Amino acid sequence: MTDPIPLPQGFRAAGVSCGIKSDATKPDLSLFVSDRPCAAAAVFTTNRVCGAPVKVSRERVPSAKTRAVVINSGNANACTGQRGIDDARWMTEQVAAHLDCEARDVLVCSTGVIGHFLPRDKLAAGIPQVVERLAATPAAFADAARGIMTTDTFSKQATREATIDGTSVRVSGAAKGAAMIAPNMATMLAVLMTDAEVSPTEADAMLRHAVDRSFHCISVEGHTSTSDTVILMANGAAAGSLSATGRARVQEMLDDVAMDLSMAIIRDAEGADHLVTIDVRGCRNSEEARQIAKTVADSPLVKTAITGADPNWGRIVSAVGYSGIEVREEEISLAINNLPLYKSGAPLDFDKAAVSRSIRDNRDVSIVIDLTHGNASVRFWTCDLTSEYVRLNSEYTT
Amino acid sequence: MTDPIPLPQGFRAAGVSCGIKSDATKPDLSLFVSDRPCAAAAVFTTNRVCGAPVKVSRERVPSAKTRAVVINSGNANACTGQRGIDDARWMTEQVAAHLDCEARDVLVCSTGVIGHFLPRDKLAAGIPQVVERLAATPAAFADAARGIMTTDTFSKQATREATIDGTSVRVSGAAKGAAMIAPNMATMLAVLMTDAEVSPTEADAMLRHAVDRSFHCISVEGHTSTSDTVILMANGAAAGSLSATGRARVQEMLDDVAMDLSMAIIRDAEGADHLVTIDVRGCRNSEEARQIAKTVADSPLVKTAITGADPNWGRIVSAVGYSGIEVREEEISLAINNLPLYKSGAPLDFDKAAVSRSIRDNRDVSIVIDLTHGNASVRFWTCDLTSEYVRLNSEYTT
Repeated sequence: MTDPIPLPQGFRAAGVSCGIKSDATKPDLSLFVSDRPCAAAAVFTTNRVCGAPVKVSRERVPSAKTRAVVINSGNANACTGQRGIDDARWMTEQVAAHLDCEARDVLVCSTGVIGHFLPRDKLAAGIPQVVERLAATPAAFADAARGIMTTDTFSKQATREATIDGTSVRVSGAAKGAAMIAPNMATMLAVLMTDAEVSPTEADAMLRHAVDRSFHCISVEGHTSTSDTVILMANGAAAGSLSATGRARVQEMLDDVAMDLSMAIIRDAEGADHLVTIDVRGCRNSEEARQIAKTVADSPLVKTAITGADPNWGRIVSAVGYSGIEVREEEISLAINNLPLYKSGAPLDFDKAAVSRSIRDNRDVSIVIDLTHGNASVRFWTCDLTSEYVRLNSEYTT
Repeated sequence: MTDPIPLPQGFRAAGVSCGIKSDATKPDLSLFVSDRPCAAAAVFTTNRVCGAPVKVSRERVPSAKTRAVVINSGNANACTGQRGIDDARWMTEQVAAHLDCEARDVLVCSTGVIGHFLPRDKLAAGIPQVVERLAATPAAFADAARGIMTTDTFSKQATREATIDGTSVRVSGAAKGAAMIAPNMATMLAVLMTDAEVSPTEADAMLRHAVDRSFHCISVEGHTSTSDTVILMANGAAAGSLSATGRARVQEMLDDVAMDLSMAIIRDAEGADHLVTIDVRGCRNSEEARQIAKTVADSPLVKTAITGADPNWGRIVSAVGYSGIEVREEEISLAINNLPLYKSGAPLDFDKAAVSRSIRDNRDVSIVIDLTHGNASVRFWTCDLTSEYVRLNSEYTT
């Protein structure tokens, strides 16, 4: 993530420190702005206890005239009642006043500690500063990406560019989320921007397509955050309306950017020794495949087996069994790092030392689960469970 | 668990070593026998991948003429296909031949490593020995309780006695399950015996009542075993048919014995520093209460907060939020160790140091979650997540 990442046309960004985080060298207030009204869509946490910014932003998408996303880090503004909702709305009003738009054209996210009220005085001073710093440069975009970090050890950006219908089109995004070390619910936020032109309805469908294959396919500990939010803004600055082929190409770029950012989140799992890719194939539909994958991914016994480089297929097969999906053991086959361990319900003879070595010697581990129900599949990512995870998450105090 | 625990009237038990475990000083074959036909019922794992003994025993209950339960440890006979089913049936045939009953009057359980075939030669030699050792003494019952252990650090027995309708009636039980250190799915087995007289239908209802309040209310890591089994045998040796009051009293004793055994399993969590009791109150029904409690109990972020003595109510409230139960944050209140931290959706001012100290200084931690939906409640138990858990579960190799 060291190459400078450009913004799409017509977007500006900035990140500043306004004092919410105790360390003044760390930016904690970011702004992503489109110079013209955007089609915008968003996907939010399914947690019934959600942060105030989720409640406020959820009412404002899909939209045809969104102008900006404002994000603070260091304070999640969650479990803060009506005052929290008022604070979130107030943040968007402050930004809207500077951009000469309506408050409802500004979306808002917050990430950090739960149960504390936002410091309005610091934000009132910070918002003019972050507006002042807005720029279309990669440096400004990088500042904005840093401003949304909490326990992340590196900032996360991604971009794709292609010539579509004769015009250069770009998709860029920034995300935060540090998975296993995240002390407060591992909140995941992402802002995706494109200069392609799509309608709000299209933006919504395209974002859900991308999220289903990326952010919805990573899991670290199964604890759903109160604040997870992924936003897409499409401002049409690059080109007029897209051909069907052009739209499909933008979808691909969007999928790729979302995937890059998801992988960056999983890779930023400080406590983890292994990145685990779980392929579940041969399912009736992708929802069933995802549910099986997530159950395997969230099993502490599977995770610790990977930590210990133990090819303990019994833990994996039994997790498939309690996933809630109708499956018989004769329908299950399993391979780790391309080495078959279990076939149609029966254990295979395999070189245990070789499989164990292949787990121990590689940061990336592959688990492939083959069923016999149909043609649907999913690729899912998680990481292992180490003593370091426990240390980081138990030593943190609110 | 040091006092000798008596068997109910008309029951005998034994435990011997037949060489399935590599350590010959550890018994690995147990038998629980009623001298007369019993009413029997059982509750099994809901995992769709289940051990061969589960498949065989499930077809044999409820029953009016069960005579025995045979259990081996050191090998789970799970994921072993048709040969595993044949082996499980064969075990019951061997026992039945000695007891002069039908194979279907014998139930079978196995616990231990997954994916290996049972050693028939060792069992063929061991079964006559364990029959030979059958006795009605506390010592024989203690041997049988030891014979079902895997990674348990102590054997688990419980008993209750009462005078009912003028006669002394007893309920006794043995269980295994070592929760967090269990390397192979933390299988939980229990055999409950009573000399009260109940019908098979009554036995089934009474067992489910007891299990719903005990074994179904403990969770260590949310990984459902392939082999979990709880069996009740009621032989009527103590008395004739019970009055309604008498039956209610037997239910109470059964509930108490099941609860004692469940608590012993949670307390045998070697890697754990804290036993956590979660009370969920004010729910629409007990299923919803249990689902909320289990979601909180299985959250690694909640567990590590307890490990770190951090009164991080945000992790608990957010786990309630993603439990799948319809709930709004204004309907949630929360206390840890009787200290209120969160009330009707808003954080309370509290002495963080005092709450932290009360967690750190006590092995037992109480979490009370109050909702406003109704009058149903549940009490649930779990333990914290420590580095020691990760070490034990990652160093174990199959």
